[in-house]
Amino acid sequence: MTTPLPLAPMPTIMIEPLVRAALLEDLGRAGDLTTSAIAPVDLMVTASLVARQSGVVAGLDLVELAFRLIDERVKIDRQRQDGEAIAAGDTIAEIRGPARAILTAERTALNFLCRLSGIASATAAIVAAVAGEKARIVCIRKTTPGLRAIEKYAVRAGGGANGRFGLDDAVFIKDNHIAIAGSVATAIERARSYVGHLVKIEVEVDTLKQLEEALAVGVDAVLLDNMTVEQMRRAVEMTAGRAITEASGRITLATAPAIAATGVDLISIGWLTHSAPALDIGLDFQTGELP
Amino acid sequence: MTTPLPLAPMPTIMIEPLVRAALLEDLGRAGDLTTSAIAPVDLMVTASLVARQSGVVAGLDLVELAFRLIDERVKIDRQRQDGEAIAAGDTIAEIRGPARAILTAERTALNFLCRLSGIASATAAIVAAVAGEKARIVCIRKTTPGLRAIEKYAVRAGGGANGRFGLDDAVFIKDNHIAIAGSVATAIERARSYVGHLVKIEVEVDTLKQLEEALAVGVDAVLLDNMTVEQMRRAVEMTAGRAITEASGRITLATAPAIAATGVDLISIGWLTHSAPALDIGLDFQTGELP
Amino acid sequence: MTTPLPLAPMPTIMIEPLVRAALLEDLGRAGDLTTSAIAPVDLMVTASLVARQSGVVAGLDLVELAFRLIDERVKIDRQRQDGEAIAAGDTIAEIRGPARAILTAERTALNFLCRLSGIASATAAIVAAVAGEKARIVCIRKTTPGLRAIEKYAVRAGGGANGRFGLDDAVFIKDNHIAIAGSVATAIERARSYVGHLVKIEVEVDTLKQLEEALAVGVDAVLLDNMTVEQMRRAVEMTAGRAITEASGRITLATAPAIAATGVDLISIGWLTHSAPALDIGLDFQTGELP
Amino acid sequence: MTTPLPLAPMPTIMIEPLVRAALLEDLGRAGDLTTSAIAPVDLMVTASLVARQSGVVAGLDLVELAFRLIDERVKIDRQRQDGEAIAAGDTIAEIRGPARAILTAERTALNFLCRLSGIASATAAIVAAVAGEKARIVCIRKTTPGLRAIEKYAVRAGGGANGRFGLDDAVFIKDNHIAIAGSVATAIERARSYVGHLVKIEVEVDTLKQLEEALAVGVDAVLLDNMTVEQMRRAVEMTAGRAITEASGRITLATAPAIAATGVDLISIGWLTHSAPALDIGLDFQTGELP
Amino acid sequence: MTTPLPLAPMPTIMIEPLVRAALLEDLGRAGDLTTSAIAPVDLMVTASLVARQSGVVAGLDLVELAFRLIDERVKIDRQRQDGEAIAAGDTIAEIRGPARAILTAERTALNFLCRLSGIASATAAIVAAVAGEKARIVCIRKTTPGLRAIEKYAVRAGGGANGRFGLDDAVFIKDNHIAIAGSVATAIERARSYVGHLVKIEVEVDTLKQLEEALAVGVDAVLLDNMTVEQMRRAVEMTAGRAITEASGRITLATAPAIAATGVDLISIGWLTHSAPALDIGLDFQTGELP
Amino acid sequence: MTTPLPLAPMPTIMIEPLVRAALLEDLGRAGDLTTSAIAPVDLMVTASLVARQSGVVAGLDLVELAFRLIDERVKIDRQRQDGEAIAAGDTIAEIRGPARAILTAERTALNFLCRLSGIASATAAIVAAVAGEKARIVCIRKTTPGLRAIEKYAVRAGGGANGRFGLDDAVFIKDNHIAIAGSVATAIERARSYVGHLVKIEVEVDTLKQLEEALAVGVDAVLLDNMTVEQMRRAVEMTAGRAITEASGRITLATAPAIAATGVDLISIGWLTHSAPALDIGLDFQTGELP
Repeated sequence: MTTPLPLAPMPTIMIEPLVRAALLEDLGRAGDLTTSAIAPVDLMVTASLVARQSGVVAGLDLVELAFRLIDERVKIDRQRQDGEAIAAGDTIAEIRGPARAILTAERTALNFLCRLSGIASATAAIVAAVAGEKARIVCIRKTTPGLRAIEKYAVRAGGGANGRFGLDDAVFIKDNHIAIAGSVATAIERARSYVGHLVKIEVEVDTLKQLEEALAVGVDAVLLDNMTVEQMRRAVEMTAGRAITEASGRITLATAPAIAATGVDLISIGWLTHSAPALDIGLDFQTGELP
Repeated sequence: MTTPLPLAPMPTIMIEPLVRAALLEDLGRAGDLTTSAIAPVDLMVTASLVARQSGVVAGLDLVELAFRLIDERVKIDRQRQDGEAIAAGDTIAEIRGPARAILTAERTALNFLCRLSGIASATAAIVAAVAGEKARIVCIRKTTPGLRAIEKYAVRAGGGANGRFGLDDAVFIKDNHIAIAGSVATAIERARSYVGHLVKIEVEVDTLKQLEEALAVGVDAVLLDNMTVEQMRRAVEMTAGRAITEASGRITLATAPAIAATGVDLISIGWLTHSAPALDIGLDFQTGELP
Repeated sequence: MTTPLPLAPMPTIMIEPLVRAALLEDLGRAGDLTTSAIAPVDLMVTASLVARQSGVVAGLDLVELAFRLIDERVKIDRQRQDGEAIAAGDTIAEIRGPARAILTAERTALNFLCRLSGIASATAAIVAAVAGEKARIVCIRKTTPGLRAIEKYAVRAGGGANGRFGLDDAVFIKDNHIAIAGSVATAIERARSYVGHLVKIEVEVDTLKQLEEALAVGVDAVLLDNMTVEQMRRAVEMTAGRAITEASGRITLATAPAIAATGVDLISIGWLTHSAPALDIGLDFQTGELP
Repeated sequence: MTTPLPLAPMPTIMIEPLVRAALLEDLGRAGDLTTSAIAPVDLMVTASLVARQSGVVAGLDLVELAFRLIDERVKIDRQRQDGEAIAAGDTIAEIRGPARAILTAERTALNFLCRLSGIASATAAIVAAVAGEKARIVCIRKTTPGLRAIEKYAVRAGGGANGRFGLDDAVFIKDNHIAIAGSVATAIERARSYVGHLVKIEVEVDTLKQLEEALAVGVDAVLLDNMTVEQMRRAVEMTAGRAITEASGRITLATAPAIAATGVDLISIGWLTHSAPALDIGLDFQTGELP
Repeated sequence: MTTPLPLAPMPTIMIEPLVRAALLEDLGRAGDLTTSAIAPVDLMVTASLVARQSGVVAGLDLVELAFRLIDERVKIDRQRQDGEAIAAGDTIAEIRGPARAILTAERTALNFLCRLSGIASATAAIVAAVAGEKARIVCIRKTTPGLRAIEKYAVRAGGGANGRFGLDDAVFIKDNHIAIAGSVATAIERARSYVGHLVKIEVEVDTLKQLEEALAVGVDAVLLDNMTVEQMRRAVEMTAGRAITEASGRITLATAPAIAATGVDLISIGWLTHSAPALDIGLDFQTGELP
Repeated sequence: MTTPLPLAPMPTIMIEPLVRAALLEDLGRAGDLTTSAIAPVDLMVTASLVARQSGVVAGLDLVELAFRLIDERVKIDRQRQDGEAIAAGDTIAEIRGPARAILTAERTALNFLCRLSGIASATAAIVAAVAGEKARIVCIRKTTPGLRAIEKYAVRAGGGANGRFGLDDAVFIKDNHIAIAGSVATAIERARSYVGHLVKIEVEVDTLKQLEEALAVGVDAVLLDNMTVEQMRRAVEMTAGRAITEASGRITLATAPAIAATGVDLISIGWLTHSAPALDIGLDFQTGELP
């Protein structure tokens, strides 16, 4: 049996446009007035990224880019990697470079890091809650506009898996599609005849009857929407491995274990990306060396 | 005494790039596979935006743009306006147009609406909690990268006010700037000599001694960071109107009233923008008219 | 049994950036010198898009956008739709509007139309050559940089299907990936543990032994690379429906029928997008009405 | 007599946006799933760009950028330069760097290289076919939208020359312009009075009578459109050096020599850029060093 | 003899990106605070663009776009066209629409209009100064970064002609190129062998000896750099129509007539675009209708 | 008393997009034809930026970027810094690198440098004219579209201060806003209730009566528009430090001293940015080392 490779970093070419845009959003037209007025141009400082809460870190490549896009002399020494657990008080990384660059990029760096670490931490908590069951935790398309790729990366960093990245990488047939097609079967057949061979088809079912219809015509995955735990258990039995089963519908840390115990393959959770609170991480200057 | 004008909408030119980018992020390279496969090109439908939770709505202009950038034949009839309270079950708007456009833009529209309404709702809750006191609720720069302008708009929709929009529209002197300058007074003086006459200067103070130093040299606003309620009351007295006073430091719905009662002018809260959960709003198709 | 919907158009939001960029590439900094010098600003004309060769048309939405982005008064009356066969001499569309706009946008419109119609025509020819067999014709990622989405649309217009749109919508394990992983099985297992549940996995196999290994560990699709017709037939038998089978390797109009007859599910052809010659289509002015 | 300098490379600032966009088009939102899943992050490999056909190479700067924009540790050792002839089996360049980067950028690099080398090779073949005559081979504006600059570079690499780069760098009066102006002479005069002194004027003529009219009023160049070889010979005689003569109209490898023998200065060929097939070039890993 | 067509407008597709970017530059992140606070959303007003100085107007299409990109309900009634002379006090256009839109776009509209009208006016003054001579007034590449196309349009509006639009639409051989090539003749020959047949070649000469060398080898145009009037007269005689002659070198309104009298074909003036003062034009509200 | 820090440079991330766009504007589609044809690819040269006029230099970071974005081997040795005075004949910097890069980037570099130095020089002249008075010289929003940030930087380099950077960083109430609001007081009150606590409010007053009204309701700054020197003196007295006073209205080098003597805090001058002539600076090659 093979061991999975560790979490793959995103290529810089994919994340740099986001970091660049965020820095420019903050710099505006006049730049960092406070720092320009107060910090001498040559002053070098050291600062630490310190966790104020426990959780899982994600986003260090964006942090590094934020500082280095302002001044490439900034060096970052990581003491934790994306995907690792951190406790309150832990130093995540040490940052050394011109004071101006560190002050100017600080907020942008933290805005990325706290958000992504918040998502990774929320994911990790749910993953831990269902440990021992086969169910994987997956995110959906309820992401922040513009940040989908990095938010889904944060879910992976937290030990979760990713659902669709967009409207175009899989077919997902919702209740409204079924209503338009007239039946579950017609919807699935239209999809199968339309898409390429590398595109999977998932259908949302609200009832066991719909599930039966879907399985009869054949489908790659079924989303069991807002079913009771008992219905889900029945659904898993009925499916009998003929399709991937995904539980969905306001699932929380409290309800996830029972749902996982039904034997579903996946538990999808929208709030990992749309409502997970930011993880509190701060940047502390080592003031001993200041003038 | 004059009455303030109602909440001003953001010009389309400012929000359209965000909506366009979000739609393209979701469409990817192959577009909406499911809808293309299933929904006939000429089918017209009606759908309703329905609140599943109570709160305050914000973001309807972005919703309208999302649908109309996909197909300009979509028409939206708003039954609530940005800034208005909504209860669970309320219809916010009716949307009529081609089924394909509505299905394709739905997630993007909701991703904006739920996030912004979440911010507006969290803001409104805090604003209500301090009603009767003069303190205004303000957001800070802990916003989602790329979405600062619209998130700050959502704070206004919730009845809050906006702090800085960036590093360049006001001076904000933090502890690290003070450490670099050597003293509160030096930091303020450097800032005053650097910036233009239309730029205000605010300084963060951790102690009443620092406050005294700031008031002595003169400053537009002081941020009272992580002070106790009693310290804040003393700070307000000491300031005696010579500067705007702003309370800060993990302030919650529970702690806000006592802080407001100290007489501070402002209460700034980062989590309005970085951690407010999305408001649950859905899009319901009127299936009666479907084929 | 359900009937597939007709070819779905791409949303304007996806193609407009391409057309806009192409027009600006041609206009440069000084605009259309010839037309500005010669054509009166108010002269209205009618012109016809006429096929000089037989084939299948694709790209009319881009044509319409090209003219209308220069002057929205241009009207297009389509006599053929994307995906329809045309013969030499056929009028595809009539275009009426300001002479300046039509002259200025002509080359951009034709550059899109001729290229996409070339791809659609080449695809349709292969599709016709394998008619009666179940094999579908699919394109791969050998597309023109920047034009992947519309070139794959052209393949669909020609009756073909689409392979991967990018590195991220399916796993495709090539010989080099296998060499790095050490074995077909290890490569497939690593992929399965890494990707989400909506991502299919295809593996390239050069030998029947590799095919056996892939089928043993389980995989969604197998690409039979550069096999003889006899090997392909054996491969299809061995696979016995456990995976989708895709034939690949310099397949031409001449060799496709025999390959299709082996029973493979798919025949993938890179040259549809990288080397199909443009279809010759011209724009003829109706000079009768000129001054 | 001076010797011309060798083919000038395009500045990186001009080609990098194209390469960056092409990589992002391929990476999509989730990046290279296959490589992330399978290739260890630290594995270094060597690979060779190998010609599978004879021809002329063009596009090595884009290839280098494609790999280095993914990972700047990739090093390229070129054994051929743009504009040089290659035979099937020749190694064009050796590439060494992280396996992930090489696998991820491979298709983008080859898509540029094969297309541009295809254009250079087709150009070189025609250039060779008219060797000994003074006629130069030139491309026109029938280029791929977005790629005009690099496709015209490829024509230069193949030994050809460039016609207009856009609507704005020269006046080119076509039949429709003449119809609108009322006569060849009026069209030329309007153009001359409109444009700056550094802009040349070329007019398309279909008959010797039109040629006579053009020469009478004076023009920089005349395009002899779809004339017979005999008409062209007459046209060249009539022109007698008073204008540059350019032959045009579906000229092929077979017909070019006779046309060149008429004494025309230029032979323009649209299919060099719109229909030249890609040159087959592959990337071979040196698997000896793999794990 | 044909009459030249009137000044051709630039296509909207070319100028809209400039206007859009300028509006966004002014709106920043928070939009027009003053207008949002003060002007009721439904108030309609009328305002007039009024010349405060005499001159020539240029830029009305950009003005119209500026207002209409903020609110498409704004209507503009032009009383003068680009290229027409205006006197102090003249109304150029009347603008009617929402007060908010007019106040918000006012500065952007005027920044374009005053700059371009300043260039047109300066050009017209020089053109008038050399009236009666054949010399045309031409601009060069000393333009504002990003605004070259519209600044050269303004020169045309003022009755001038355009020199090169960039490094790529003509060859211009300067003193440093000559020094590198070793001689005027070598430089010209290298250029001729390098560029396409539609590219003109101009060479800068400082002395009559260099002019002689250039004419001997043949060139399209010669720039007579910083010559005395007497030298220019000799140069024109020597050239005898074999090349276009262009006078250059800090030529002013005062010195232009004598230079034109030498018989040169062109007088090029950098300060038309780099130093012409803005024309003073204001926007006056018709306050009678205000609340 | 603290010493202000020297002029802060703008971060590269803010200016690079401007320089990159300007270079691409000049390179067009075919690049630098002249240099490609004439200069050998490996030739290294040295050149000097030399002032042809006295003034104050600004823009050296943009100059450096212009050369280095074309070829990063170019090295710049600055002999003057932004904000320093230069005399005619002074060498500002020495530039060494590939001849091609220096020739290609020269015009773009100079277009930035001459414009920004022109603004800095005009500013410095006015600053010198009011030396000894407390009045600071400030620019307004009459800037070149797209260049506001760097033009305001040039004002700072000349010793001036900056007014608003946009519509969103301060409230500025003009005559038309007052007319719409109905009174100075209503306008100010609406603004105060609308904007955040870090936003200053300035109001334009034409009469002392309006000034009185503004001071009564309270405002941060008053702009005294087109007042006589005597009126300004009275206005300063009336204000008595309760607001910042700003003189405005076609103020020139000649009239500035008397205005400064009235005791106003600020003198704002639009022509610093919209009409200051470019400073004449050239690039001289050291031809001794040429071939």
